[in-house]
Amino acid sequence: MRHANLVESFQSILPTESVLYETEDLKPYECDGLSAYRQLPMIAVLPGNEAEIIEILKICEAEKIPVVARGAGTGLSGGALPHADGVLLSLAKLNEILEIDPVACTARVQPGVRNLAISEAAEAYGLYYAPDPSSQIACTIGGNVAENSGGVHCLKYGLTVHNILKLRVLTIEGDVLEIGSEALDSPGFDLLALMSGSEGMLGIITEITVKLLPIPEAAQLVMAAFDDIEKAGAAVANIIRAGIVPAGLEMMDKMTIAAVEAFIHAGYDPDAAAIVLCESDGSNEAVAEEIEKIRGIMRESGAVRIDTARGEAERRRFWAGRKAAFPAAGRVSPDYYCMDGTIPRKHLAEVLRRIEDLSSEFGLRCMNVFHAGDGNLHPLILYDANRSGELEKAEAFGARILEICIEAGGSLTGEHGVGIEKLNQMCLQFGDAERDLFHAVKAAFDPDSLLNPGKAIPSLHRCAEFGAMHVHRGDEQFPDLPRF
Amino acid sequence: MRHANLVESFQSILPTESVLYETEDLKPYECDGLSAYRQLPMIAVLPGNEAEIIEILKICEAEKIPVVARGAGTGLSGGALPHADGVLLSLAKLNEILEIDPVACTARVQPGVRNLAISEAAEAYGLYYAPDPSSQIACTIGGNVAENSGGVHCLKYGLTVHNILKLRVLTIEGDVLEIGSEALDSPGFDLLALMSGSEGMLGIITEITVKLLPIPEAAQLVMAAFDDIEKAGAAVANIIRAGIVPAGLEMMDKMTIAAVEAFIHAGYDPDAAAIVLCESDGSNEAVAEEIEKIRGIMRESGAVRIDTARGEAERRRFWAGRKAAFPAAGRVSPDYYCMDGTIPRKHLAEVLRRIEDLSSEFGLRCMNVFHAGDGNLHPLILYDANRSGELEKAEAFGARILEICIEAGGSLTGEHGVGIEKLNQMCLQFGDAERDLFHAVKAAFDPDSLLNPGKAIPSLHRCAEFGAMHVHRGDEQFPDLPRF
Repeated sequence: MRHANLVESFQSILPTESVLYETEDLKPYECDGLSAYRQLPMIAVLPGNEAEIIEILKICEAEKIPVVARGAGTGLSGGALPHADGVLLSLAKLNEILEIDPVACTARVQPGVRNLAISEAAEAYGLYYAPDPSSQIACTIGGNVAENSGGVHCLKYGLTVHNILKLRVLTIEGDVLEIGSEALDSPGFDLLALMSGSEGMLGIITEITVKLLPIPEAAQLVMAAFDDIEKAGAAVANIIRAGIVPAGLEMMDKMTIAAVEAFIHAGYDPDAAAIVLCESDGSNEAVAEEIEKIRGIMRESGAVRIDTARGEAERRRFWAGRKAAFPAAGRVSPDYYCMDGTIPRKHLAEVLRRIEDLSSEFGLRCMNVFHAGDGNLHPLILYDANRSGELEKAEAFGARILEICIEAGGSLTGEHGVGIEKLNQMCLQFGDAERDLFHAVKAAFDPDSLLNPGKAIPSLHRCAEFGAMHVHRGDEQFPDLPRF
Repeated sequence: MRHANLVESFQSILPTESVLYETEDLKPYECDGLSAYRQLPMIAVLPGNEAEIIEILKICEAEKIPVVARGAGTGLSGGALPHADGVLLSLAKLNEILEIDPVACTARVQPGVRNLAISEAAEAYGLYYAPDPSSQIACTIGGNVAENSGGVHCLKYGLTVHNILKLRVLTIEGDVLEIGSEALDSPGFDLLALMSGSEGMLGIITEITVKLLPIPEAAQLVMAAFDDIEKAGAAVANIIRAGIVPAGLEMMDKMTIAAVEAFIHAGYDPDAAAIVLCESDGSNEAVAEEIEKIRGIMRESGAVRIDTARGEAERRRFWAGRKAAFPAAGRVSPDYYCMDGTIPRKHLAEVLRRIEDLSSEFGLRCMNVFHAGDGNLHPLILYDANRSGELEKAEAFGARILEICIEAGGSLTGEHGVGIEKLNQMCLQFGDAERDLFHAVKAAFDPDSLLNPGKAIPSLHRCAEFGAMHVHRGDEQFPDLPRF
């Protein structure tokens, strides 16, 4: 089917303004949050309901045209990068909160609903939706499911997959799947978990039932400063080891503290080598007691300064600093590359030392911010895209960081997904047997590979090429990898 | 390959005593906890290590012989029922705890390790493994993963899938898969969750890395008695709605209380229409505070008696009653059939009324015990297998209960799996599109359907036959189903 015919087909099922094909109309869709990669789609469609999506999918399936789903486009790994010969399927118009059930503590929503909008709507019932990616003002719940998003609170409350109950999903053929249940478990293979984090490669999500939680009575935050980043890492481990599950447990290094303080004056200790933010939420009494315990552990772990937020304003200010870490990086450097690897907590200090060495080796600064409680690192590599070769250096630096995470027994993504960004590292993370299975599972859902092709799972060919330049976990060839 | 040749092949790779083929040797493997169904396998093998399992699988794959994996055989849905023309693969000899990492709070274990043995070994480090099926003294962690087992504590601490980090799995071809990671998330499709609860149909698990939690400082239990089962149900909802996540939240009806009291004198109120057990664990202060809140909610919900356990001995006695509910059923009836459905909590009272009606209709008594917090019902249908037709009536009664759970928006299994027991209800729980996908996912792992064939996913043929006698969610044909 030629381009013009396809436009006509879509126009026959959608309002005219919902079918975009002129370059200037397609421009807003050319990238997601990983803006170093850009590609115009052939056509973009903006359906308003599930029936229209079914018709779109049937056309694409019949004509073997790739389909890339898109929420708000805030993803950081290129998962929503359009396909040059494909259709960009925006789910932005499916933005209704269909039902809030305050007894069952659930909300049934369309995929284009913004993450924060769910909590805003649930607030009237004293409820909220727990996972809170930094982009929660803008990002959509459909995108959250596709990437299995996390956030500051996921240490205590889990990732997206732990906070959803049911999904309504369309197959590439346009069939409706109803998966999951309102119960804790669901029989048969766990398609709900399989769909979570599948990056638009298995089906198109049209409805999501999320869990809502009662808004905690109280929340309180401790900011602890350390003169040594290893002590800060030990404090994190000691808190977890004491059986405390904080509502948030974050860490920032010296360069991040400086950048943040210069930017928004969060009140962090500017002399610290690292600070740890630790939040407790729950009933007034439980929070008061837990905060005392946290302060005690910080003290025993060698903190040089321990501040408990004096009132809600200071608590928000402490958090504002953490949440401003990415824009703060943007102020001290023309460009930055945000990484997302996870490691077992016990290797934190070792991995940080290694990142410092790489920083010298590549001649690029690196700010370190992390969800310390779950070992999820967000190194921010600072570079200047206008200086020849710096982007490439930043990417190579980033790739090395991910490889170190894998070598440390961790994973190449904590919450940002694989997308197109981390395809090469997937060749390191998994062997042939696992990758073969990923492809087999993909084929079980989408035999012609029309749904977001080329993302998340590297082709065997790509891994062979990558392997040729980059020996898989070869100790001899990788003398600079840390031995854990 | 003929039987004798197959025995010889296995004997060439296994010690002689690890290959069983005589009827008397096979007898112990003829059923699991669903003992109404029995079948001798052709051969049973008891490998001692992964290398031996790989050889066994290669032989079975080459000869297209079905393989049924078995842990301790405590499963209640017939998942480990042998295949008449197949090999029963016992994992009992793979029973080593390979490593406990007290810093990362993980244990790496073989599949044949008993659930409770993990907590016993971790106790020296002040740690334990949270999921606690009633059978935890006997059941194995491999079986727990295969069934995604729950237990009293899973309301607070999650099902098995939420408490495992990594799996080592063999495909039917004998390839090794390493899935999951020590981090919170893992890239690629979520094969860890897909494997959990897959009932031995996708691969053979040879190693499991589980999460360990710090043993709580304190645990305390409230026993509340109600003169009306609906009030008890409301109390459960009110506790959840108040943002409390109890370590256990269980409910029993009048008949269960009577049976339990006659059996072990747990100290329950014998006049109550229902009792609710609610446990809090954590630090001393947090538990004391939460117990006060729980007592307050019980009072407001209309409890006629509220006892907080006076000391550890009484706490254990209150729990002993709950844990003895199944054997207590065995004392008041020659046989009982344990069901396992889940429903949204809000429909608890309605579903219980419906079960009572069915009890009259079928002329069989039914005791009701449930993990009330997560809406997981365990109706125990009492019958006498020696009375002609009673088993069939019990099965029909049980099937109706599961159908009501599905109709109420719940699910046909909470934690016991589908096995062979609930294949018909899977035809009601899911439509063709979902079942097609289950088969496609199965084929992606096991193209010749050699791993535990005939379990968990009904064939299209079976559903067509079942549908012919039993119209799918047909309101007209099902006038007796409750409308929610």
